[in-house]
Amino acid sequence: MSSQKTLGILGGGQLGRLLLSASQNLLIPTLILDPSPTCPASQLLPSPSQHIVKPFTDAAAIMELAERGADVLTVEIEHVDVGALRGVMERYDGLEGRRKVEVHPDPGTIEVIQDKYKQKVFLRDAGCALGEFVEIPSGQKEEDAVKEATEGLGLPLMLKAKRLAYDGRGNYLLRSSEPSAISTALSALRGGTQKDLEIYAEKFVPFKAELAVMVVRSTTGQVKSYPCVETVQRDNICHLVWAPYPDSSAGDRARDVAEKAVAALGGAGIFGVEMFLLEDGSVLLNEIAPRPHNSGHYTLSIAPGASQFENHLRAVLGLPLGSTEIGEGCTAMINLVGSSSSSTSNAGSDSTSTTSNTLATPSLDTALSSQTTRALQTPGASVYLYGKAECRKGRKMGHVNVSGPSRGEVEGRVKFILGEASDATQSSSSEERAGAREGSKAAKKPLVGIVMGSDSDLPTMRGAAEVLKEFGVECEVTIVSAHRTTDRLVEYARSASPRGLHTIIAGAGGAAHLPGMLASITPLPVIGVPINNAGGGAGGGLGGVDALYSIVQMPKGIPVATVAINNSANAGLLAIRILSAVVPRLRGEMEDYMKRMERVVLGKVRRLEEVGWEGY
Amino acid sequence: MSSQKTLGILGGGQLGRLLLSASQNLLIPTLILDPSPTCPASQLLPSPSQHIVKPFTDAAAIMELAERGADVLTVEIEHVDVGALRGVMERYDGLEGRRKVEVHPDPGTIEVIQDKYKQKVFLRDAGCALGEFVEIPSGQKEEDAVKEATEGLGLPLMLKAKRLAYDGRGNYLLRSSEPSAISTALSALRGGTQKDLEIYAEKFVPFKAELAVMVVRSTTGQVKSYPCVETVQRDNICHLVWAPYPDSSAGDRARDVAEKAVAALGGAGIFGVEMFLLEDGSVLLNEIAPRPHNSGHYTLSIAPGASQFENHLRAVLGLPLGSTEIGEGCTAMINLVGSSSSSTSNAGSDSTSTTSNTLATPSLDTALSSQTTRALQTPGASVYLYGKAECRKGRKMGHVNVSGPSRGEVEGRVKFILGEASDATQSSSSEERAGAREGSKAAKKPLVGIVMGSDSDLPTMRGAAEVLKEFGVECEVTIVSAHRTTDRLVEYARSASPRGLHTIIAGAGGAAHLPGMLASITPLPVIGVPINNAGGGAGGGLGGVDALYSIVQMPKGIPVATVAINNSANAGLLAIRILSAVVPRLRGEMEDYMKRMERVVLGKVRRLEEVGWEGY
Repeated sequence: MSSQKTLGILGGGQLGRLLLSASQNLLIPTLILDPSPTCPASQLLPSPSQHIVKPFTDAAAIMELAERGADVLTVEIEHVDVGALRGVMERYDGLEGRRKVEVHPDPGTIEVIQDKYKQKVFLRDAGCALGEFVEIPSGQKEEDAVKEATEGLGLPLMLKAKRLAYDGRGNYLLRSSEPSAISTALSALRGGTQKDLEIYAEKFVPFKAELAVMVVRSTTGQVKSYPCVETVQRDNICHLVWAPYPDSSAGDRARDVAEKAVAALGGAGIFGVEMFLLEDGSVLLNEIAPRPHNSGHYTLSIAPGASQFENHLRAVLGLPLGSTEIGEGCTAMINLVGSSSSSTSNAGSDSTSTTSNTLATPSLDTALSSQTTRALQTPGASVYLYGKAECRKGRKMGHVNVSGPSRGEVEGRVKFILGEASDATQSSSSEERAGAREGSKAAKKPLVGIVMGSDSDLPTMRGAAEVLKEFGVECEVTIVSAHRTTDRLVEYARSASPRGLHTIIAGAGGAAHLPGMLASITPLPVIGVPINNAGGGAGGGLGGVDALYSIVQMPKGIPVATVAINNSANAGLLAIRILSAVVPRLRGEMEDYMKRMERVVLGKVRRLEEVGWEGY
Repeated sequence: MSSQKTLGILGGGQLGRLLLSASQNLLIPTLILDPSPTCPASQLLPSPSQHIVKPFTDAAAIMELAERGADVLTVEIEHVDVGALRGVMERYDGLEGRRKVEVHPDPGTIEVIQDKYKQKVFLRDAGCALGEFVEIPSGQKEEDAVKEATEGLGLPLMLKAKRLAYDGRGNYLLRSSEPSAISTALSALRGGTQKDLEIYAEKFVPFKAELAVMVVRSTTGQVKSYPCVETVQRDNICHLVWAPYPDSSAGDRARDVAEKAVAALGGAGIFGVEMFLLEDGSVLLNEIAPRPHNSGHYTLSIAPGASQFENHLRAVLGLPLGSTEIGEGCTAMINLVGSSSSSTSNAGSDSTSTTSNTLATPSLDTALSSQTTRALQTPGASVYLYGKAECRKGRKMGHVNVSGPSRGEVEGRVKFILGEASDATQSSSSEERAGAREGSKAAKKPLVGIVMGSDSDLPTMRGAAEVLKEFGVECEVTIVSAHRTTDRLVEYARSASPRGLHTIIAGAGGAAHLPGMLASITPLPVIGVPINNAGGGAGGGLGGVDALYSIVQMPKGIPVATVAINNSANAGLLAIRILSAVVPRLRGEMEDYMKRMERVVLGKVRRLEEVGWEGY
């Protein structure tokens, strides 16, 4: 007699498995439709009665989900029988005492998205910015139509299958308009079997980056997006995702594009929106998936936000949407993609899997076993394996999320996991060797930049570097002259935040423009050290007051945090106080530092009182 | 032929369920021993063959775990048959071709911990700081021994059962040494049935806070701890956990105590260490649980660290330990404890559970259904329900983790979930009404304190408050005079960081001591605004240079981030840049702000060029 809704999911692959895992925390009764009795989702299902072992393209099986009690149907894959979904909605329409079964997202939306050409037309009509594309009518004139498309859209030209294309399948990059090249392309796209595959052509977009945004839409039409991420493909399969995309201005434009596109579609659920960022900064929509998406797996490792899977559940069940906030720092997602068809016994014979501290997971090939092993050694890394029975080339067997305080730090960890760096300093074992409390000395990429106008300032500025070293905070130290290397100044300031710096300390003497100019370009806090370079250079004559006034008296709008003349140690300490917001250990260590100062002075108190002022 | 280890867990309650959930991400084959066929863990098990439905105190059943293939046995509850665990280790000792089955933590450790008195003796002998305690020998002289204990340890006196005590059961606070009171206490402790229950007495410890630290110990003896948390009990059951404990110095002392205690114990796994923080700042050990612990549930919502459940798995399986780092901000854990024995039908009749956007979970009582519903409306909240078949008074049915940027913010969210505040501004729906992008205007508790030496400084200092308001950052504005309210100055500075402030902006004129004195006490960044209060107050005469020098020329060790004279707007902007490290949206908004400034000036450029200098 409970009013709790039962969920039915079409598809039990990794997305179904991760949806199911999220549903279990909320005790949502769930049914799965998947033809494989050992599909990834089935491994989390307590009862075989919750798994209908039939194709998700089978209309009767889809109806069976409703018959067995599902109140809401949703999909983890868009290649489903849309007519069958409509049939369920008609039979269970909630009228005249009949049960009501909802389908989210709307079958109409799934239908539009299933056909990539139809999807593009729909989105273009909805006012979304897209690259140019043109239909290739099938039939005898097809090769002529392709030739015509190369004339209209240029070469190279993307030829795409309208349906059932993913992970690089159904895409072909045509580089020549010769009849033989066109003929080869069409054969390659269709393989031997898919004679009736319809295709269309897209203008090749030379992009600066591929971006993606997960957007969730509630049953009431409310739309919320997660931050923009960058996706990196390898062999046409998603290899890495970087969250968030460091250029937040481009990221915000992408979120606007994605939210607008999803708002135009019907139905509730999460949508993965893929986009291109062009060199001129504009954002073009590429395509949309009406379900959880590989580019949103990183959301499993964010706090305080809800994952894409939880938000999909909330959306389709009509619950309030959860936060799409992600914390400070950077998260990368590494897909564990099979590189060979190694079977269990191969993995078992991998030398790394027989040592005691290794997870000997059957069905991962040697390369993936090694990546998983290294991920377990990496701070901030979480491993998600999908439980697919067999590893195949190009098959997604799992993923690793790796988080850290900065992009640079996470890049190091990703390289280590991928086996591209033997740098074990990224692993927790090195931390253990250093005997440091967790995370305290992990940062290898600089969080603070120390710059000065001239090498003659270095003796003064080293105080800042020494303080940062004492607190175990990595910094970079270099020379940037506002007046003599202006281009370098602009480049340094512009790249500082994207490179992962959190604060800049700038020292300069005389007409000290460096701190203020940096602050005019970067959104980071800039700490200015007025330098009195007595006897030499620009600081001579005015005792440092010239530099102090130049640094501190900034116009409204551009603050510089100014410290005392020549007191670069205080600039370092101020940077530590600022960083303590993101590196929590620093707050306690700053308190300890202050207590040590107190003890030093109290020691002198005692000595002065014991010895007397005459003998001190 | 795989070398993958199979895990056997004694107990399938909520801790077993959450362990199992973590094991599924790593595809670790797992068996559960629990007498209830519908225990929480069983609901995540794909095959009934993975669940041995027998008591975890049954020696034959424990042996059956090993017989069915478990390579590592662990516990989610310490009240198990230690002899049976030793029997498994003896039979499966890995010698002479026999299989090896490991037991973690060590049965000896479980045995010591099972008996609270034995535990205390062990820890005292290991050099841990404990409150005083004394054994009460059972038998005819028992009442005399209690009377003697009240003389030695004072009143009130804690009487505790040596075994099977948890969630307040087995504890009695004796307030009088009258024979009748002692007799009542002993009857109450034993109930009607437990005639042979042995007890001991503990000196009552008047604590400032109850602290807890989760410590994980690897098979190689490596020890790592999570940050210290505060636990808040209600009716002797854990009600709330606050992570981290805001006094990081006390927290670090507690971590040291906890790590030392766990290092003294044998065996691998996670340990929950409960402690008392006394008024004098000292930390006393209370007791240890050799398993995942309620006070560590918050670790499910931290990033980038690994949860206590994942780290327990890693420890007992001999895998590398995961990070115990937690991100910036605050996480609270609310236990969903049954307040009545409401059954499903009661919950179903709750008016809130029939609306469409409510999770109608059977078996939660009305109060818990409401808390769950509100948790789903709260940003940063994650709900974990355990799937217990029946709700009972005092039974833990689930928990909610709530994260946010500051303690103050999270306190508001916790109150909303508990129904102690009708303040719907904490809910996501209010954010939606405000049309703000997720999280952007969520902070209701101040992140920045603006203080000034005198109300005459307010016209100058309002610029800072206006900037913070423009960026949607909550601030508090007040008067603190270094020279006239010194006690208030010390109190303000000392409480600033624990209260959740991230930055202080202080304005003062003349011999401007306020910013520097604040910076001498708080570890937070302090921004100083030199005030030239022309014509009035302290600033007259020297044009603000007096205040500038007083603020900027701080001695080495104590930095103040000084901005231009009277330029409090820049102080506000500097605070925004500093906060952008923890409130990521601010970095992009600062970039936008800088671009708007650029556009304003470029507009003037165009106008001047169009109109000409004469007409401008």
